[in-house]
Amino acid sequence: VSKSPGEFHLIERLLKRLGPGRCATLGPGDDCAILPPAHARQLLTIDSMVEDVHFKLGWGTPEALGARALTVNLSDIAAMGGKPTVCVVNLSVRDGLGVRFFDRMYQGLASAAAHAEVEVVGGNVTHASALAITIALLGEVRGAALRRDAARPGDTIYVTGTLGDAAAGLRILSRQLRAPAAPRKFLVDRFLQPTARVQAGLRLARIKPAPAAIDLSDGLWQDLGHILKRSGAGAEIDAGALPLSAAYRAAVGDDPSLALGGGEDYELLFCLRHAAPAPALTRRLGVRVSRVGRITSSGAAVLLDDRGAVLLDARGSAPGGASPLTGWDQLRSRLVG
Amino acid sequence: VSKSPGEFHLIERLLKRLGPGRCATLGPGDDCAILPPAHARQLLTIDSMVEDVHFKLGWGTPEALGARALTVNLSDIAAMGGKPTVCVVNLSVRDGLGVRFFDRMYQGLASAAAHAEVEVVGGNVTHASALAITIALLGEVRGAALRRDAARPGDTIYVTGTLGDAAAGLRILSRQLRAPAAPRKFLVDRFLQPTARVQAGLRLARIKPAPAAIDLSDGLWQDLGHILKRSGAGAEIDAGALPLSAAYRAAVGDDPSLALGGGEDYELLFCLRHAAPAPALTRRLGVRVSRVGRITSSGAAVLLDDRGAVLLDARGSAPGGASPLTGWDQLRSRLVG
Repeated sequence: VSKSPGEFHLIERLLKRLGPGRCATLGPGDDCAILPPAHARQLLTIDSMVEDVHFKLGWGTPEALGARALTVNLSDIAAMGGKPTVCVVNLSVRDGLGVRFFDRMYQGLASAAAHAEVEVVGGNVTHASALAITIALLGEVRGAALRRDAARPGDTIYVTGTLGDAAAGLRILSRQLRAPAAPRKFLVDRFLQPTARVQAGLRLARIKPAPAAIDLSDGLWQDLGHILKRSGAGAEIDAGALPLSAAYRAAVGDDPSLALGGGEDYELLFCLRHAAPAPALTRRLGVRVSRVGRITSSGAAVLLDDRGAVLLDARGSAPGGASPLTGWDQLRSRLVG
Repeated sequence: VSKSPGEFHLIERLLKRLGPGRCATLGPGDDCAILPPAHARQLLTIDSMVEDVHFKLGWGTPEALGARALTVNLSDIAAMGGKPTVCVVNLSVRDGLGVRFFDRMYQGLASAAAHAEVEVVGGNVTHASALAITIALLGEVRGAALRRDAARPGDTIYVTGTLGDAAAGLRILSRQLRAPAAPRKFLVDRFLQPTARVQAGLRLARIKPAPAAIDLSDGLWQDLGHILKRSGAGAEIDAGALPLSAAYRAAVGDDPSLALGGGEDYELLFCLRHAAPAPALTRRLGVRVSRVGRITSSGAAVLLDDRGAVLLDARGSAPGGASPLTGWDQLRSRLVG
């Protein structure tokens, strides 16, 4: 759609940053990017970060913002076991942000792209009332893809990394949670500068049969639900097995609510037909792996305590409760309250 | 990034509309869409439509809005001589719009996609303060692509369709222009429901050498400037040759300002090494074609009247003027004033 002179100026400036392509035959500056033929199956995803919905400008640097906009897409490719290749960026700019801001944001995006061996092959700039960065990312998958619908009863459920850190970091940034300086920095960084588990996803894709997997953008409980729904299965999660960071414990304590319900960790959850010890998987994937539960044929997710007692049943029948669970607040109040 | 329950509900509802794919191995509902290998070179583009920047809800139907969001992307593929294949959609929803609205918008998008043989393979829904639809579209190009940098001195410049209709329609919608009912409807429809010249682009791509081309989203004068800049060339445009619709003449008169400077027509401008009569090209491309000028080695665009006198010089030296042109308003005031 049509552009103002200011938008053109910004586009020109940003295009210069991106430069000619390694992968793309023709990069930014024409109507479309031209890409070489793709000999493997391709992955395509799109995700968006909107100011005052997903972030506030005062929370971090423009560089971190640009990098994060790519990371949330990289995580989708990682969750399919793919290798990211090229992306296009749609930038919605609002009044009050200078060219220096966008230079820095693009610098962060460009660094993250270079690190992930992704090429930014084109983009678009438009005016809007809020800053938003939308990225569409292509990838390729050479073996079997890690699909949400591949979980089977008996599979063992694992997660990478630690859970709830980003949610705790978000609450610190939103002044809903206080923490000492060291855990504070760790948790806030986990929110502002998450890591997409691309290498772990690629290594998972070599396991046969191909594990079911999803990235944890909405929180374990919710994202596990997507796996269960698509696979037609249930799950048991061991509350005591959820991997909590030392910083999480320092800021939140032993309450696993944020680890279960908080989003934005961009870790991977995956399900293996043939269980393997977590330390062996940690070595194999190059990132900490924890065993957190198993897929069942029950059709629902239940959370168990150390003695196997049901803490929570996602069908809405928590012990002593009657009303259906409609959101995390209720879940949390039942679990903690 | 993480979602609210309402966003999930909307995603589920919209995903059901999209259904399983023809082209995609795995469509909406996983972390990414899985696409088959691409044997031809691919095109990739992204474009966005933002409420109160590019459209107002009261102007047209939700269906037309959904279709237009795809059309502006189709036009980029058309301008490269490509065949569009699959797209992903990022929808930013604001409060106050019901599910019925989004159902209708997606119906319009789905119809436009079916008409263009494009598959919607995935998407994302996020909250925002304004409605925005961002689409990333893939295409393929089997022969030479129509590039902006391929114009050479001596090339003849053509455009498809008529020019300035959408700009006049936008001014009617914005109550800056009045017109009788029949031309009003024609012009408003040209803005609200533009046609991407995909077939014409595919046919142009068979011409050798491959024509330089661009789609007219920002207005002929501006878009021609992109061709000239990338090709290192100049151009002469014959003011009297600009194709004006009867509706344009009825609403605007013979003033070609909107045809030169108004955007959103989504016609194609292309440059042929070997000139051909416009009627023959009209038959060949399946859409009206007009010859409007020629590429020169001068390094600038000039607008000529019927006697070859310079009406306007894009370097800023309009006859009798001295200050550089910085935007269409100045251009128009010089041309018309």
